[in-house]
Amino acid sequence: MKNWKLESSEEVFSAGSRFSVHKQCVELPAGQKIDDYYFIKGFNFAIIYAVTQDGFVILEKAYRHGPGKIVWSLPAGHLSPNEIPLDTAKRELLEECGYSGGTWTEIGSFVNNGNQQAGFAHMFLAEGVTKTTEPESGDLEEMEICLLKPEELHKMLFDGQIPIISSAALIALASLKLQQ
Amino acid sequence: MKNWKLESSEEVFSAGSRFSVHKQCVELPAGQKIDDYYFIKGFNFAIIYAVTQDGFVILEKAYRHGPGKIVWSLPAGHLSPNEIPLDTAKRELLEECGYSGGTWTEIGSFVNNGNQQAGFAHMFLAEGVTKTTEPESGDLEEMEICLLKPEELHKMLFDGQIPIISSAALIALASLKLQQ
Repeated sequence: MKNWKLESSEEVFSAGSRFSVHKQCVELPAGQKIDDYYFIKGFNFAIIYAVTQDGFVILEKAYRHGPGKIVWSLPAGHLSPNEIPLDTAKRELLEECGYSGGTWTEIGSFVNNGNQQAGFAHMFLAEGVTKTTEPESGDLEEMEICLLKPEELHKMLFDGQIPIISSAALIALASLKLQQ
Repeated sequence: MKNWKLESSEEVFSAGSRFSVHKQCVELPAGQKIDDYYFIKGFNFAIIYAVTQDGFVILEKAYRHGPGKIVWSLPAGHLSPNEIPLDTAKRELLEECGYSGGTWTEIGSFVNNGNQQAGFAHMFLAEGVTKTTEPESGDLEEMEICLLKPEELHKMLFDGQIPIISSAALIALASLKLQQ
Protein backbone atom coordinates (compact mmCIF):
# COMPACT_ATOMS: atom_id res chain seq x y z
CA MET A 1 0.00 0.00 0.00
CA LYS A 2 1.48 3.33 -1.08
CA ASN A 3 0.75 7.05 -0.92
CA TRP A 4 -0.56 8.97 -3.91
CA LYS A 5 1.85 11.34 -5.64
CA LEU A 6 0.87 14.99 -5.99
CA GLU A 7 1.93 16.16 -9.45
CA SER A 8 0.46 19.67 -9.43
CA SER A 9 -1.98 21.90 -7.57
CA GLU A 10 -3.67 25.03 -8.86
CA GLU A 11 -5.91 27.39 -6.87
CA VAL A 12 -9.27 27.55 -8.64
CA PHE A 13 -11.34 29.40 -6.03
CA SER A 14 -10.57 31.64 -3.08
CA ALA A 15 -12.84 32.90 -0.31
CA GLY A 16 -10.17 35.30 0.94
CA SER A 17 -8.51 34.21 4.18
CA ARG A 18 -11.31 31.76 4.95
CA PHE A 19 -10.67 28.91 2.53
CA SER A 20 -9.55 28.11 -0.99
CA VAL A 21 -10.18 25.29 -3.46
CA HIS A 22 -7.31 23.68 -5.36
CA LYS A 23 -7.51 21.47 -8.45
CA GLN A 24 -4.86 18.81 -8.11
CA CYS A 25 -3.32 16.30 -10.46
CA VAL A 26 -2.47 13.14 -8.54
CA GLU A 27 -0.89 9.83 -9.52
CA LEU A 28 -2.17 6.65 -7.88
CA PRO A 29 0.18 3.78 -6.94
CA ALA A 30 -0.92 1.70 -9.97
CA GLY A 31 0.00 4.59 -12.28
CA GLN A 32 -3.51 5.96 -12.92
CA LYS A 33 -3.63 9.76 -13.05
CA ILE A 34 -6.49 11.96 -11.92
CA ASP A 35 -6.25 15.51 -13.14
CA ASP A 36 -9.22 17.03 -11.31
CA TYR A 37 -9.00 16.00 -7.68
CA TYR A 38 -10.28 18.93 -5.60
CA PHE A 39 -8.65 19.86 -2.33
CA ILE A 40 -9.87 22.46 0.17
CA LYS A 41 -7.43 24.48 2.28
CA GLY A 42 -8.56 26.48 5.31
CA PHE A 43 -10.81 25.79 8.30
CA ASN A 44 -8.01 25.15 10.77
CA PHE A 45 -9.43 25.63 14.22
CA ALA A 46 -8.96 24.76 17.87
CA ILE A 47 -11.84 23.42 19.96
CA ILE A 48 -11.98 22.94 23.71
CA TYR A 49 -13.73 20.59 26.15
CA ALA A 50 -13.27 22.71 29.25
CA VAL A 51 -14.32 21.43 32.67
CA THR A 52 -14.68 23.80 35.63
CA GLN A 53 -13.30 23.01 39.07
CA ASP A 54 -16.75 21.80 40.15
CA GLY A 55 -17.18 19.44 37.19
CA PHE A 56 -19.28 21.42 34.71
CA VAL A 57 -18.50 21.56 30.98
CA ILE A 58 -18.56 24.94 29.17
CA LEU A 59 -20.96 25.05 26.21
CA GLU A 60 -22.12 27.82 23.89
CA LYS A 61 -25.67 28.20 22.64
CA ALA A 62 -25.93 30.23 19.46
CA TYR A 63 -27.27 30.36 15.93
CA ARG A 64 -24.81 28.62 13.59
CA HIS A 65 -25.16 29.00 9.87
CA GLY A 66 -23.83 25.48 9.06
CA PRO A 67 -26.82 23.68 10.62
CA GLY A 68 -28.95 26.84 10.06
CA LYS A 69 -30.40 26.93 13.57
CA ILE A 70 -29.70 27.62 17.24
CA VAL A 71 -27.54 24.81 18.57
CA TRP A 72 -25.13 23.90 21.36
CA SER A 73 -21.43 23.65 20.63
CA LEU A 74 -18.07 23.72 22.38
CA PRO A 75 -15.90 26.86 22.42
CA ALA A 76 -13.77 26.99 19.26
CA GLY A 77 -11.98 29.42 17.01
CA HIS A 78 -9.85 29.64 13.91
CA LEU A 79 -6.08 29.69 14.15
CA SER A 80 -4.59 33.13 13.52
CA PRO A 81 -1.60 33.18 11.15
CA ASN A 82 1.43 31.47 12.79
CA GLU A 83 -0.53 30.74 15.96
CA ILE A 84 0.00 27.33 17.55
CA PRO A 85 -3.28 25.47 18.26
CA LEU A 86 -2.89 25.43 22.06
CA ASP A 87 -2.54 29.24 22.08
CA THR A 88 -5.67 29.56 19.91
CA ALA A 89 -7.56 27.27 22.27
CA LYS A 90 -6.57 29.24 25.39
CA ARG A 91 -7.26 32.58 23.68
CA GLU A 92 -10.71 31.52 22.47
CA LEU A 93 -11.75 30.05 25.84
CA LEU A 94 -10.81 33.33 27.51
CA GLU A 95 -12.28 35.67 24.85
CA GLU A 96 -15.51 33.77 24.16
CA CYS A 97 -16.22 32.42 27.62
CA GLY A 98 -14.05 34.30 30.14
CA TYR A 99 -12.37 31.13 31.49
CA SER A 100 -8.68 30.33 31.90
CA GLY A 101 -6.21 28.27 33.92
CA GLY A 102 -6.54 24.54 34.53
CA THR A 103 -4.59 21.57 33.19
CA TRP A 104 -4.51 21.18 29.41
CA THR A 105 -4.25 17.91 27.46
CA GLU A 106 -4.08 17.55 23.69
CA ILE A 107 -6.76 15.11 22.50
CA GLY A 108 -5.55 15.11 18.88
CA SER A 109 -5.72 16.84 15.50
CA PHE A 110 -8.29 15.52 13.06
CA VAL A 111 -8.71 16.28 9.37
CA ASN A 112 -12.19 17.61 8.59
CA ASN A 113 -12.62 15.71 5.31
CA GLY A 114 -10.95 12.38 4.55
CA ASN A 115 -10.64 13.08 0.83
CA GLN A 116 -10.58 16.87 0.39
CA GLN A 117 -8.89 17.78 3.73
CA ALA A 118 -10.77 21.04 4.48
CA GLY A 119 -8.45 21.85 7.39
CA PHE A 120 -7.83 20.35 10.80
CA ALA A 121 -9.70 20.42 14.10
CA HIS A 122 -7.18 20.64 16.93
CA MET A 123 -8.85 19.29 20.06
CA PHE A 124 -8.05 20.01 23.68
CA LEU A 125 -9.25 18.96 27.10
CA ALA A 126 -8.91 21.61 29.84
CA GLU A 127 -9.58 20.43 33.38
CA GLY A 128 -10.17 22.74 36.34
CA VAL A 129 -10.63 26.06 34.50
CA THR A 130 -11.90 29.09 36.42
CA LYS A 131 -13.81 32.22 35.42
CA THR A 132 -11.36 35.11 35.33
CA THR A 133 -13.06 37.73 33.16
CA GLU A 134 -16.24 38.59 31.27
CA PRO A 135 -16.56 37.18 27.73
CA GLU A 136 -15.97 39.61 24.87
CA SER A 137 -18.95 39.94 22.58
CA GLY A 138 -18.11 38.37 19.24
CA ASP A 139 -18.54 40.17 15.94
CA LEU A 140 -21.28 37.99 14.43
CA GLU A 141 -22.17 36.08 17.53
CA GLU A 142 -25.14 36.47 19.81
CA MET A 143 -24.26 33.76 22.26
CA GLU A 144 -25.17 32.24 25.63
CA ILE A 145 -22.47 30.55 27.73
CA CYS A 146 -23.78 27.61 29.76
CA LEU A 147 -22.36 25.11 32.21
CA LEU A 148 -23.63 21.57 31.83
CA LYS A 149 -22.95 18.26 33.53
CA PRO A 150 -21.29 15.55 31.39
CA GLU A 151 -24.34 13.26 31.88
CA GLU A 152 -26.59 15.91 30.30
CA LEU A 153 -24.18 16.28 27.38
CA HIS A 154 -24.24 12.54 26.73
CA LYS A 155 -28.02 12.68 26.32
CA MET A 156 -27.81 15.78 24.10
CA LEU A 157 -25.28 14.07 21.81
CA PHE A 158 -27.93 11.59 20.74
CA ASP A 159 -30.97 13.84 20.49
CA GLY A 160 -29.74 16.32 17.86
CA GLN A 161 -28.95 19.26 20.16
CA ILE A 162 -25.20 19.12 19.38
CA PRO A 163 -25.29 18.73 15.58
CA ILE A 164 -21.82 20.02 14.64
CA ILE A 165 -19.42 17.12 14.14
CA SER A 166 -16.38 18.74 15.79
CA SER A 167 -18.28 19.43 19.02
CA ALA A 168 -19.91 15.99 19.10
CA ALA A 169 -16.54 14.34 18.35
CA LEU A 170 -14.68 16.17 21.10
CA ILE A 171 -17.37 15.62 23.74
CA ALA A 172 -17.33 11.88 23.01
CA LEU A 173 -13.51 11.67 22.75
CA ALA A 174 -12.93 13.66 25.95
CA SER A 175 -15.48 11.50 27.77
CA LEU A 176 -13.61 8.34 26.70
CA LYS A 177 -10.28 9.93 27.63
CA LEU A 178 -11.56 10.84 31.10
CA GLN A 179 -12.65 7.22 31.64
CA GLN A 180 -9.13 5.90 31.01
CA MET B 1 -31.73 34.62 20.17
CA LYS B 2 -32.86 34.37 16.55
CA ASN B 3 -31.89 32.67 13.29
CA TRP B 4 -30.13 34.52 10.51
CA LYS B 5 -32.16 35.32 7.40
CA LEU B 6 -30.87 34.10 4.06
CA GLU B 7 -31.47 36.87 1.51
CA SER B 8 -29.77 35.35 -1.54
CA SER B 9 -27.40 32.58 -2.56
CA GLU B 10 -25.36 32.37 -5.74
CA GLU B 11 -23.19 29.44 -6.85
CA VAL B 12 -19.64 30.77 -7.35
CA PHE B 13 -17.72 27.49 -7.78
CA SER B 14 -18.68 23.95 -8.76
CA ALA B 15 -16.64 20.75 -8.57
CA GLY B 16 -19.28 18.85 -10.54
CA SER B 17 -21.35 16.44 -8.47
CA ARG B 18 -18.81 16.52 -5.64
CA PHE B 19 -19.37 19.91 -4.05
CA SER B 20 -20.15 23.54 -4.82
CA VAL B 21 -19.46 26.88 -3.16
CA HIS B 22 -22.22 29.47 -2.75
CA LYS B 23 -21.86 33.15 -1.93
CA GLN B 24 -24.70 34.10 0.34
CA CYS B 25 -26.16 37.37 1.54
CA VAL B 26 -27.42 36.95 5.10
CA GLU B 27 -29.13 39.28 7.55
CA LEU B 28 -28.26 38.98 11.23
CA PRO B 29 -30.89 39.45 13.98
CA ALA B 30 -29.62 42.98 14.80
CA GLY B 31 -30.08 43.98 11.15
CA GLN B 32 -26.44 43.77 10.02
CA LYS B 33 -26.04 42.35 6.52
CA ILE B 34 -23.15 40.22 5.28
CA ASP B 35 -23.02 39.94 1.53
CA ASP B 36 -20.16 37.43 1.19
CA TYR B 37 -20.85 34.55 3.53
CA TYR B 38 -19.59 31.39 1.84
CA PHE B 39 -21.50 28.14 2.09
CA ILE B 40 -20.37 24.72 0.82
CA LYS B 41 -22.88 22.16 -0.47
CA GLY B 42 -21.96 18.51 -0.97
CA PHE B 43 -20.09 15.89 1.08
CA ASN B 44 -23.18 14.10 2.33
CA PHE B 45 -22.12 10.65 3.41
CA ALA B 46 -23.06 7.70 5.59
CA ILE B 47 -20.53 6.13 7.95
CA ILE B 48 -20.83 2.89 9.88
CA TYR B 49 -19.53 1.49 13.17
CA ALA B 50 -20.18 -2.17 12.41
CA VAL B 51 -19.60 -4.86 15.05
CA THR B 52 -19.39 -8.53 14.07
CA GLN B 53 -21.20 -11.28 16.00
CA ASP B 54 -17.98 -12.01 17.93
CA GLY B 55 -17.42 -8.38 18.96
CA PHE B 56 -14.90 -7.06 16.41
CA VAL B 57 -15.26 -3.66 14.73
CA ILE B 58 -14.76 -3.38 10.94
CA LEU B 59 -12.05 -0.89 9.92
CA GLU B 60 -10.45 0.03 6.61
CA LYS B 61 -6.76 0.76 6.17
CA ALA B 62 -6.01 2.84 3.09
CA TYR B 63 -4.29 5.92 1.72
CA ARG B 64 -6.59 8.93 2.13
CA HIS B 65 -5.81 12.16 0.34
CA GLY B 66 -7.30 14.38 3.10
CA PRO B 67 -4.63 13.48 5.68
CA GLY B 68 -2.23 12.57 2.81
CA LYS B 69 -1.15 9.22 4.26
CA ILE B 70 -2.21 5.65 5.01
CA VAL B 71 -4.72 5.72 7.87
CA TRP B 72 -7.47 3.71 9.53
CA SER B 73 -11.07 4.74 9.06
CA LEU B 74 -14.59 3.37 9.32
CA PRO B 75 -16.51 2.21 6.22
CA ALA B 76 -18.28 5.20 4.63
CA GLY B 77 -19.65 6.38 1.33
CA HIS B 78 -21.38 9.28 -0.33
CA LEU B 79 -25.15 9.32 -0.70
CA SER B 80 -26.30 8.62 -4.24
CA PRO B 81 -29.01 10.99 -5.56
CA ASN B 82 -32.30 10.39 -3.69
CA GLU B 83 -30.75 7.64 -1.55
CA ILE B 84 -31.72 7.62 2.13
CA PRO B 85 -28.68 7.47 4.46
CA LEU B 86 -29.50 4.05 5.95
CA ASP B 87 -29.56 2.53 2.45
CA THR B 88 -26.19 4.14 1.65
CA ALA B 89 -24.75 2.77 4.88
CA LYS B 90 -25.93 -0.80 4.19
CA ARG B 91 -24.82 -0.63 0.55
CA GLU B 92 -21.34 0.65 1.42
CA LEU B 93 -20.78 -1.90 4.19
CA LEU B 94 -21.67 -4.68 1.75
CA GLU B 95 -19.74 -3.30 -1.25
CA GLU B 96 -16.60 -2.14 0.55
CA CYS B 97 -16.37 -4.81 3.24
CA GLY B 98 -18.68 -7.72 2.28
CA TYR B 99 -20.71 -7.55 5.52
CA SER B 100 -24.47 -7.33 6.00
CA GLY B 101 -27.29 -8.18 8.40
CA GLY B 102 -27.31 -7.24 12.08
CA THR B 103 -29.30 -4.69 14.04
CA TRP B 104 -28.99 -1.08 12.91
CA THR B 105 -29.26 2.04 15.10
CA GLU B 106 -29.05 5.63 13.93
CA ILE B 107 -26.44 7.52 15.98
CA GLY B 108 -27.25 10.90 14.43
CA SER B 109 -26.58 13.28 11.53
CA PHE B 110 -23.86 15.87 12.07
CA VAL B 111 -22.97 18.90 9.96
CA ASN B 112 -19.33 18.82 8.82
CA ASN B 113 -18.70 22.55 9.31
CA GLY B 114 -20.50 24.70 11.87
CA ASN B 115 -20.37 27.85 9.73
CA GLN B 116 -20.10 26.71 6.09
CA GLN B 117 -22.09 23.43 6.40
CA ALA B 118 -20.06 21.28 3.91
CA GLY B 119 -22.63 18.48 4.07
CA PHE B 120 -23.72 16.01 6.71
CA ALA B 121 -22.20 12.84 8.15
CA HIS B 122 -25.02 10.34 8.78
CA MET B 123 -23.80 7.92 11.43
CA PHE B 124 -24.94 4.38 12.10
CA LEU B 125 -24.20 1.60 14.55
CA ALA B 126 -24.66 -1.94 13.16
CA GLU B 127 -24.46 -4.77 15.71
CA GLY B 128 -24.02 -8.44 14.83
CA VAL B 129 -23.13 -8.12 11.13
CA THR B 130 -21.85 -11.20 9.25
CA LYS B 131 -19.63 -11.67 6.22
CA THR B 132 -21.84 -12.59 3.29
CA THR B 133 -19.73 -11.78 0.21
CA GLU B 134 -16.31 -10.61 -0.95
CA PRO B 135 -15.70 -6.83 -1.05
CA GLU B 136 -15.81 -5.18 -4.47
CA SER B 137 -12.58 -3.44 -5.35
CA GLY B 138 -13.16 0.32 -5.32
CA ASP B 139 -12.20 2.60 -8.18
CA LEU B 140 -9.49 4.64 -6.45
CA GLU B 141 -9.11 2.52 -3.39
CA GLU B 142 -6.38 0.07 -2.55
CA MET B 143 -7.70 -1.04 0.80
CA GLU B 144 -7.30 -3.55 3.60
CA ILE B 145 -10.32 -4.58 5.67
CA CYS B 146 -9.44 -5.35 9.29
CA LEU B 147 -11.31 -6.49 12.39
CA LEU B 148 -10.27 -4.82 15.61
CA LYS B 149 -11.37 -4.98 19.23
CA PRO B 150 -12.98 -1.81 20.68
CA GLU B 151 -10.17 -1.57 23.29
CA GLU B 152 -7.57 -1.36 20.50
CA LEU B 153 -9.61 1.33 18.76
CA HIS B 154 -9.76 3.43 21.91
CA LYS B 155 -5.95 3.48 22.03
CA MET B 156 -5.69 4.27 18.30
CA LEU B 157 -8.09 7.24 18.71
CA PHE B 158 -5.52 9.03 20.84
CA ASP B 159 -2.31 8.13 19.00
CA GLY B 160 -3.06 9.62 15.58
CA GLN B 161 -3.88 6.39 13.71
CA ILE B 162 -7.52 7.43 13.11
CA PRO B 163 -7.04 11.06 12.00
CA ILE B 164 -10.29 11.64 10.05
CA ILE B 165 -12.82 13.43 12.24
CA SER B 166 -15.91 11.49 11.08
CA SER B 167 -14.32 8.12 11.94
CA ALA B 168 -12.98 9.33 15.28
CA ALA B 169 -16.34 10.91 16.13
CA LEU B 170 -18.37 7.80 15.33
CA ILE B 171 -16.01 5.43 17.18
CA ALA B 172 -16.26 7.60 20.28
CA LEU B 173 -20.02 8.20 19.95
CA ALA B 174 -20.81 4.52 19.34
CA SER B 175 -18.64 3.55 22.31
CA LEU B 176 -20.60 5.92 24.57
CA LYS B 177 -23.89 4.67 23.11
CA LEU B 178 -22.95 1.02 23.80
CA GLN B 179 -22.17 1.92 27.43
CA GLN B 180 -25.71 3.28 28.02
